[in-house]
Amino acid sequence: MSTLVTVDFEPLGRRIQVPAGSDLLSAAQKAGVELLAACGGMGICGQCRVRLVQGRLSPLTADEEALFTPAERSAGLRLACQALAHSDVLLEVPPESLLSQARLQTEGHDPRTDFDPAVHAVDLSLPLPSQQDLRDDLRRAAEALAVPLHANLPALNALSRALRAHGGQVRLALRDEGEFTRLLSASAPETPPLGLAVDMGSTKLAAFLIHLESGAVLGQAAAMNPQISYGEDVISRIAYANKAPENRAVLQTRLVESLNQLAQSLCAQAGAAVEQIVEGVLVGNTAIHHFLCGLPVEPLGTAPYIAAVSQPLDLPAEALGLHLAPGAMLHLPALIAGYVGADHTAALLASDFDAPSAVQVLVDIGTNTEISLSAGGQILTCSTASGPAFEGAHIHDGMRAAPGAVERVRWADGRAQVFTVGGKAPVGLCGTGILQAVAELYGAGILDQRGVFQRLPDGSRPSQLVLVPSTETGHGRDIVVTRKDVNEIQLAKGAIRAGIEILLAEAGLRAEDVQRWVIAGAFGAYLDLPSAVRLGMFPAVPLERFFQVGNAAGVGARQMLLSRTRRQQAAALPQRVRYIELTAYADFTRRFVQSMYFGSI
Amino acid sequence: MSTLVTVDFEPLGRRIQVPAGSDLLSAAQKAGVELLAACGGMGICGQCRVRLVQGRLSPLTADEEALFTPAERSAGLRLACQALAHSDVLLEVPPESLLSQARLQTEGHDPRTDFDPAVHAVDLSLPLPSQQDLRDDLRRAAEALAVPLHANLPALNALSRALRAHGGQVRLALRDEGEFTRLLSASAPETPPLGLAVDMGSTKLAAFLIHLESGAVLGQAAAMNPQISYGEDVISRIAYANKAPENRAVLQTRLVESLNQLAQSLCAQAGAAVEQIVEGVLVGNTAIHHFLCGLPVEPLGTAPYIAAVSQPLDLPAEALGLHLAPGAMLHLPALIAGYVGADHTAALLASDFDAPSAVQVLVDIGTNTEISLSAGGQILTCSTASGPAFEGAHIHDGMRAAPGAVERVRWADGRAQVFTVGGKAPVGLCGTGILQAVAELYGAGILDQRGVFQRLPDGSRPSQLVLVPSTETGHGRDIVVTRKDVNEIQLAKGAIRAGIEILLAEAGLRAEDVQRWVIAGAFGAYLDLPSAVRLGMFPAVPLERFFQVGNAAGVGARQMLLSRTRRQQAAALPQRVRYIELTAYADFTRRFVQSMYFGSI
Repeated sequence: MSTLVTVDFEPLGRRIQVPAGSDLLSAAQKAGVELLAACGGMGICGQCRVRLVQGRLSPLTADEEALFTPAERSAGLRLACQALAHSDVLLEVPPESLLSQARLQTEGHDPRTDFDPAVHAVDLSLPLPSQQDLRDDLRRAAEALAVPLHANLPALNALSRALRAHGGQVRLALRDEGEFTRLLSASAPETPPLGLAVDMGSTKLAAFLIHLESGAVLGQAAAMNPQISYGEDVISRIAYANKAPENRAVLQTRLVESLNQLAQSLCAQAGAAVEQIVEGVLVGNTAIHHFLCGLPVEPLGTAPYIAAVSQPLDLPAEALGLHLAPGAMLHLPALIAGYVGADHTAALLASDFDAPSAVQVLVDIGTNTEISLSAGGQILTCSTASGPAFEGAHIHDGMRAAPGAVERVRWADGRAQVFTVGGKAPVGLCGTGILQAVAELYGAGILDQRGVFQRLPDGSRPSQLVLVPSTETGHGRDIVVTRKDVNEIQLAKGAIRAGIEILLAEAGLRAEDVQRWVIAGAFGAYLDLPSAVRLGMFPAVPLERFFQVGNAAGVGARQMLLSRTRRQQAAALPQRVRYIELTAYADFTRRFVQSMYFGSI
Repeated sequence: MSTLVTVDFEPLGRRIQVPAGSDLLSAAQKAGVELLAACGGMGICGQCRVRLVQGRLSPLTADEEALFTPAERSAGLRLACQALAHSDVLLEVPPESLLSQARLQTEGHDPRTDFDPAVHAVDLSLPLPSQQDLRDDLRRAAEALAVPLHANLPALNALSRALRAHGGQVRLALRDEGEFTRLLSASAPETPPLGLAVDMGSTKLAAFLIHLESGAVLGQAAAMNPQISYGEDVISRIAYANKAPENRAVLQTRLVESLNQLAQSLCAQAGAAVEQIVEGVLVGNTAIHHFLCGLPVEPLGTAPYIAAVSQPLDLPAEALGLHLAPGAMLHLPALIAGYVGADHTAALLASDFDAPSAVQVLVDIGTNTEISLSAGGQILTCSTASGPAFEGAHIHDGMRAAPGAVERVRWADGRAQVFTVGGKAPVGLCGTGILQAVAELYGAGILDQRGVFQRLPDGSRPSQLVLVPSTETGHGRDIVVTRKDVNEIQLAKGAIRAGIEILLAEAGLRAEDVQRWVIAGAFGAYLDLPSAVRLGMFPAVPLERFFQVGNAAGVGARQMLLSRTRRQQAAALPQRVRYIELTAYADFTRRFVQSMYFGSI
């Protein structure tokens, strides 16, 4: 009898046990991970690439030797059809190896945007130097602009080259910094200045390319956060970073590489050059912010979770290894606390928490869920570990919202009616699907308030329920809802509800007093609100008070890119925030346990 | 008959012709380059290392294979005793391979120094974070200091680590930047903050380590400018940089490496760590400034020689790859023109040209000589290519001021009395030696005003004169003065004198009107003034009006390191300068030819 080993496919969150010595392609197929394999596993097409993150595989085969460059080999790339698992292994599946790339939420509801960008472009026609005019390049430009002009070395370099390449006819991108003006780029006349806004989530990166003269969104793109291969949540990434000094740099480098790739692909799509990107606004949680900046993350891993810096940072892009315009600047908005980052600042901004006219709540759902309650000029904020269940991870038949994922479920007449992403035959449950499945089963009395399956006629309790029988699925296996799946949903929704209740209690308010419930995040955009309310994830207030706004952090980042006013408003937000650390909150455990029950509480 | 090849030993400026196939150790011995070779050329001791910069050598021998690491091999290191010259070759001789390292001038006359450094250090005792005090690290420090505190990412990193390493007891080095305070380093309490002042000459680098709280000079060190292997003067280095895109980076990297090594060796000598160096002031000519900063140098190679930037620059040391304190800043003072750099700004400052009370002239002698005349509130400045003769290069028996170099010569009774560096048996002539030799020969009537040897009784003109016969030298060969040597001196001193005369003419002054003649530079510190005046290098004014101040640029750099006031005074200097481009000056050729004659003009 052979030993079993676990093969873990990330960032998909799929795990499977197979006999030691199994090939990875079969393991992927068993796990429902649809790898490309045009040659049918002959080691020829090179499509089923995976990257070994951890564990032992069989040595490279001759086919693999022939296929991979030395750089790819040393990066750990393997062909799934050739490599055999000799131990538990953790693999990263690049998106291009997947039959259908996961659907990624990058758009958010953009209510209105001020337009007063920090950057503007000027076309200059400068006199050429002569024996009678020996002014240096920077002074020549500064005197034509009649401003005190500063430039870092790459920008100076670009100015010097552009002046000579275009005979003194140049376009300069400039950034007003109060007492001086900063040169960001020098290029041929009329080159449009572009901006990059990125929401760096724990799971995915959503990026927007913006025309800074018109405010137009030229393109948007999304990618998995490559750090996911080193830990599903920030806690495990911090643990990974603490393990060895070089690990933190690995997390930083992988993130920066992905940001560079996003910028490049956005520019390629828009027919622009990355050198046109003169400013970026990047938001993310505190740990991702610190990883990006190369700041110590150890203090974020232990109470009281102290950040190295939380004020807004303006940094040259080159200092982080981002290859944009030579003098491009990055704006990293203010963080709020160790577990509430600039993404929440941006989401608060996008949700108009800067000018609170109403009592309102923002729930930004992700692996961590940040919740804010604005009332009487103060903002109460907490963060709660809602886990990855809503992203389809840690669910028996869970998956991301890729084609074939069940996203809507109706239970009627003792059977489920399901709707899938892309209308394909069902192969698994994404976050909204499992949430609604559980809500329907609870509504039908098949699950009780505690999340326990009702007794069968023989008095026993089943441990799972077949939601879609194998005859109706795309892979010929049942899609089930297990007791553990239900429990994952209870933990996730309980964490969110407990956070909401504690903020209400701290403010001395009841749920009915809140006029506006803003639900943000990719999952929040797609979730079925009546289901969420039925399960008690949100209080039972009239549904018209809920606003599902999608990626509010991305919207806030775009607003800050396009408006100095919005940037200032965002900078002022954290000063009004009172942060409540739930793990140190006396009543948290009781409320959490209470919130795990289904139904209105 | 075998072909002859030229072997060029840099940075020593010694060249020799040898039959192709000769070993480099013999070539070095013939050229008077004293390489260490304890094993007598057996390929065992590994002391006679040289680096191949250009040309072809025999393949590595087994001894060399065994001796060198792969990195050394790929850097081009060879053993002189093993490698045979197969073509003309250019070699770099590392200082450690030389029997006696060249004497390098690093000290200057330091008349008085204001003391108000830009940097100060503060010991803080910060409360530890708690659930009741969740302030981030930067804010914690800023509020204790009661200043708006900025920090780049490495400094933030250091702050975060130091706070945890020392339980909130830290010393911060801070730099006042007007509207905010910049954090430069965070360390254990009472760590002294240090500063680095460097004069980056075309030939050598002179560095000083300064205690920023007391102003004390903790150490000084010098090194050859490694760029010399790529061109003796900046013109040829610019040509090298223009040849291939990567060459400019080579020149930058080599310079930065040397600066890092200087900082490290100074700190090692002083029992300090390079992380204590929180600020540096670096001065050098415009080309070296641009090489250091990675700015384009092409425009400096062609008229009208325009700099990319000439205003003072304050840069994070990390932006240039200098490894000092995490947030260390570099101050690069203002440049004056394409061929008059910040070293001259610093020399003007050290010579009190910022507060001109007298009509005075500064002559800073190097491969390029910069000359300034201050009169009536204006400073007239020019640069002149005096060449490397005064450094002992391009002279038949020339050498640097290393032990055995003739530095003083008296001609009496038809023979020379010589004095050597270190009192060793003479082996060559350094700059001051050849200058004085020529002056003595001219004084004795052996050379005429045109620099031509007097006719012998047979009516012929000799082409050289034996200054020290082989019986009295350290290497058993004659030390001679050739017609070409005399001509090199004429060119060098003529260029300087022509520059002086043109400045005087532009100012409408005579030499007698100048009250103070400041002669700066290493050669200027050691030269025999009566000889220089006799040859007409300087006008025949009373000798007490001359001040030989040595490395004035280094003194100026130190003053700027220790005083914000001096820094501001230096920044204001270039605005008072009128630069005169000699190559475009109508009268220059006539005056230059006239100035080549010996004697008072």
